Amino acid sequence: MASVRIREAQEGDCGDILRMIRVMELAEYEKLSDQVKISEEALRADGFGENPFYHCLVAEMVAPGEPQGPCVVGYGLYYFIYSTWTGRNVYLEDVYVMPEYRGQGIGTKIIKKVAEVALDKGCSQFRLAVLDWNKRAMDLYKALGGQDLTEAEGWHSFRFEREVMKELAGR
Amino acid sequence: MASVRIREAQEGDCGDILRMIRVMELAEYEKLSDQVKISEEALRADGFGENPFYHCLVAEMVAPGEPQGPCVVGYGLYYFIYSTWTGRNVYLEDVYVMPEYRGQGIGTKIIKKVAEVALDKGCSQFRLAVLDWNKRAMDLYKALGGQDLTEAEGWHSFRFEREVMKELAGR
Repeated sequence: MASVRIREAQEGDCGDILRMIRVMELAEYEKLSDQVKISEEALRADGFGENPFYHCLVAEMVAPGEPQGPCVVGYGLYYFIYSTWTGRNVYLEDVYVMPEYRGQGIGTKIIKKVAEVALDKGCSQFRLAVLDWNKRAMDLYKALGGQDLTEAEGWHSFRFEREVMKELAGR
Repeated sequence: MASVRIREAQEGDCGDILRMIRVMELAEYEKLSDQVKISEEALRADGFGENPFYHCLVAEMVAPGEPQGPCVVGYGLYYFIYSTWTGRNVYLEDVYVMPEYRGQGIGTKIIKKVAEVALDKGCSQFRLAVLDWNKRAMDLYKALGGQDLTEAEGWHSFRFEREVMKELAGR
């Protein structure tokens, strides 16, 4: 029987990860994936150098006797952030499972592994963000014990884009 | 006449920064500042080692002829994050100006400096979060060109606390 395994991503997984990033963007934003400016080379350089900018877990289906070997069906990409109240924490930027592998608890397994990593690194919390129409994901995070800080405390996320930054910097 | 200068924080500023973190927490959350678990030692170690977990700017009032020298009246604490669409970006965790120095554009100066740093490091955006009752701050960020992603796109922030992480990790 096929089983799922969560492991640290290797540099050779970057092609699979980029493919999933593109599929996710396409599915979630219903337009061509032209917002994804990242390349496989950048993912390799940024995640697997001496001071990596991110860390990544992959979910792998292992089917005994499958001639093609294990197949990557999801990922969780995280990095360390810093709270002025509690110090070092983890931010889970993306958690994704390919549609045909959903409903098997793979997303939950990824999140549990992130919790383990965060505890091992002495973090007191981890954070993530989700779009409000993604009810399935929001329900999962709540079921796993996550608090919706936007709902509970009124946190709003802001973004300053490149052109705005240039104006601010007087360039 | 007194003027304000934005500069990189030095290790010796950590006492001033911690004092402002505590005052801010007290003012914003109207309770004892018992959520601030961070110490001056942790701020020193985490921000000024070989691979710092955060970076910090301070706003300093310089009054010519002032015998006590320049005085730190605000700070902006940021770190690098990673977007799977655009790569390395900046997150401004805290931006704070002491109440008696507000209305002089010091917060704006800190944000402009963050934009400069982000551009210099090749980032295509910077992000921050704000509480919805903090209308003054939200209006400022909008006036400076920031987009409210919670309002515009429906992003909700979630947090998993330590006790929940332990459960998730089966510990």
